Amino acid sequence: MSPARNRPLPVPSSRSSSAPSAAPAAPLSLQLFSPSGVLARPAALSLAARRLKACGFQVVEDEAARARHQRLAGPDDVRLAALHRVAAAAPSVAMATRGGYGLSRLLDRIDWPLLARSVERGTRWVGHSDFTALHIGLLAHTGAGSWAGPMATDDFGRAEDAGGVDDVTRDCFIEAMTGELEAVGFRTEASFDSLQLRGRLWGGNLSMLLSMLGTPHWPSARTIKGGVLFIEDVNEHPYRIERGLLQLHQAGVLGAQKAVLLGQFSAWKPSPLDRGYTLKTVVAHLRSLLSVPLITGLPFGHVPTKLTLPVGRTVQLLVQGRDALIGW
Amino acid sequence: MSPARNRPLPVPSSRSSSAPSAAPAAPLSLQLFSPSGVLARPAALSLAARRLKACGFQVVEDEAARARHQRLAGPDDVRLAALHRVAAAAPSVAMATRGGYGLSRLLDRIDWPLLARSVERGTRWVGHSDFTALHIGLLAHTGAGSWAGPMATDDFGRAEDAGGVDDVTRDCFIEAMTGELEAVGFRTEASFDSLQLRGRLWGGNLSMLLSMLGTPHWPSARTIKGGVLFIEDVNEHPYRIERGLLQLHQAGVLGAQKAVLLGQFSAWKPSPLDRGYTLKTVVAHLRSLLSVPLITGLPFGHVPTKLTLPVGRTVQLLVQGRDALIGW
Repeated sequence: MSPARNRPLPVPSSRSSSAPSAAPAAPLSLQLFSPSGVLARPAALSLAARRLKACGFQVVEDEAARARHQRLAGPDDVRLAALHRVAAAAPSVAMATRGGYGLSRLLDRIDWPLLARSVERGTRWVGHSDFTALHIGLLAHTGAGSWAGPMATDDFGRAEDAGGVDDVTRDCFIEAMTGELEAVGFRTEASFDSLQLRGRLWGGNLSMLLSMLGTPHWPSARTIKGGVLFIEDVNEHPYRIERGLLQLHQAGVLGAQKAVLLGQFSAWKPSPLDRGYTLKTVVAHLRSLLSVPLITGLPFGHVPTKLTLPVGRTVQLLVQGRDALIGW
Repeated sequence: MSPARNRPLPVPSSRSSSAPSAAPAAPLSLQLFSPSGVLARPAALSLAARRLKACGFQVVEDEAARARHQRLAGPDDVRLAALHRVAAAAPSVAMATRGGYGLSRLLDRIDWPLLARSVERGTRWVGHSDFTALHIGLLAHTGAGSWAGPMATDDFGRAEDAGGVDDVTRDCFIEAMTGELEAVGFRTEASFDSLQLRGRLWGGNLSMLLSMLGTPHWPSARTIKGGVLFIEDVNEHPYRIERGLLQLHQAGVLGAQKAVLLGQFSAWKPSPLDRGYTLKTVVAHLRSLLSVPLITGLPFGHVPTKLTLPVGRTVQLLVQGRDALIGW
């Protein structure tokens, strides 16, 4: 593990707009596919493909990546076939074009062993948001690992006048895909005395995690016990974040973890009824109930700067003061 | 069972603005208390109390009904004490002032047997929305019944220029509290061939139901098997309603029901990405997956006209063409 090398945050000096720092030596194949929502801006997918090529990937766009059916990227059969087609092709990287909604409709029909075989053949499935359903379903049904990270249109398709591709997001993703990345670091909001633990990293979007609780797609108690759970969400008021975390607490999930990492909770609108109730209130309330460390500040969520994290992999978590390091 | 008498909907002629049709003969005691969110308009509670008195109830406002703590109607200890105080007093009717958020924080600490004893002594607990947590928790922990129905500020505190108290809501509530109500009728959207079944009525707000899944506050499979589940929600886009219903389907809940009644799904905002995806799409998709009848049109939810329904009670459901009748 090489903390200094693999410490994307906070390292402002690394945020140059120069060429990617770690383009793969031999081109890795990367397939773009749409398991969830219809593309809001199809041009963003073309832009993302160009940029990913410039990063050194051999990019293939799945034939149904731009399909449209109401709010979905094609009917269920089309999206399911795309997922299975990508799994059968087993590219080095299988990246979702975007999230939105759609995987929930496919969960009962996904050929999980086929996806697990692609992982054995070297495929790294990458995405976030709605894609949490794939991460968690794959873990639940097969134990196979996948990657929480950027998506094509949201991250690599971001217009220049909206800030372009975030350098940290891009570099961390490339290093994760080439296998160079062995650790990521970030600054927590609160200070901790020396904390050192090992556990299986898992998690993702809170709304999606909750939408799988109680179903056959939720991992067994044995799989998630002693884990390191990370959580983010978007467009959700803090009281809904709190309600979701309380549910995970009441369901015995939070208490079974060695640590809970809170990522970014973005784009929620305050209400005149809040009267001082904020995300900080939520964190304080949860800490009053939990003996498990609740660590905030993880650079992950619906924000430009996001780490690429190995879902299902056993990691080591080190926290010293406000410096946190996740290594694998 | 007297269908004609107890058929609040659709009977436009019963919607007069005259005096309540069924004021209790001997005054029933009714306590107003706040287990959830802070009162948005305290004046609405005073108005509701006056109107409930005019309906013939002996109204008592709990001492903490107007408490304020951030977005909550007082700190957890204050709201929990109010709940237990009302249970110990065992009035004929225990009505929540409003929903919002708050019961999720109390679930692990509620003295459920105390609440069940109040039910044995004749208390009818009434509310909806966040109050679904109480209905479901009470059913899960004790098997005791309660009532899904109007709340003080939202229904009885509605300003005259906003339409005042809905007559159907008021009359149905009064009849339910006096014990006169034995059946409620409504018009379904789709026509059914003769349908006749019996099962335990349970349900409420979808977001709240989902927030209890997987926790000890969710009823046992034995309790809810063969039931009649009713569901409503507010401010939730149809794709979120669908995701929630899919979760209940994947969790085996919907398939274990004899029927699922869909109430009102109000106040959601369409998205430019919907492209024809609506609540009708959701219902059609669910019907394609379920063999259980999915019956729409139940007058219940975050809308002025709502029935008062016995949660936890075995009911008979009759549907003939578009006429549905729930009797008990």
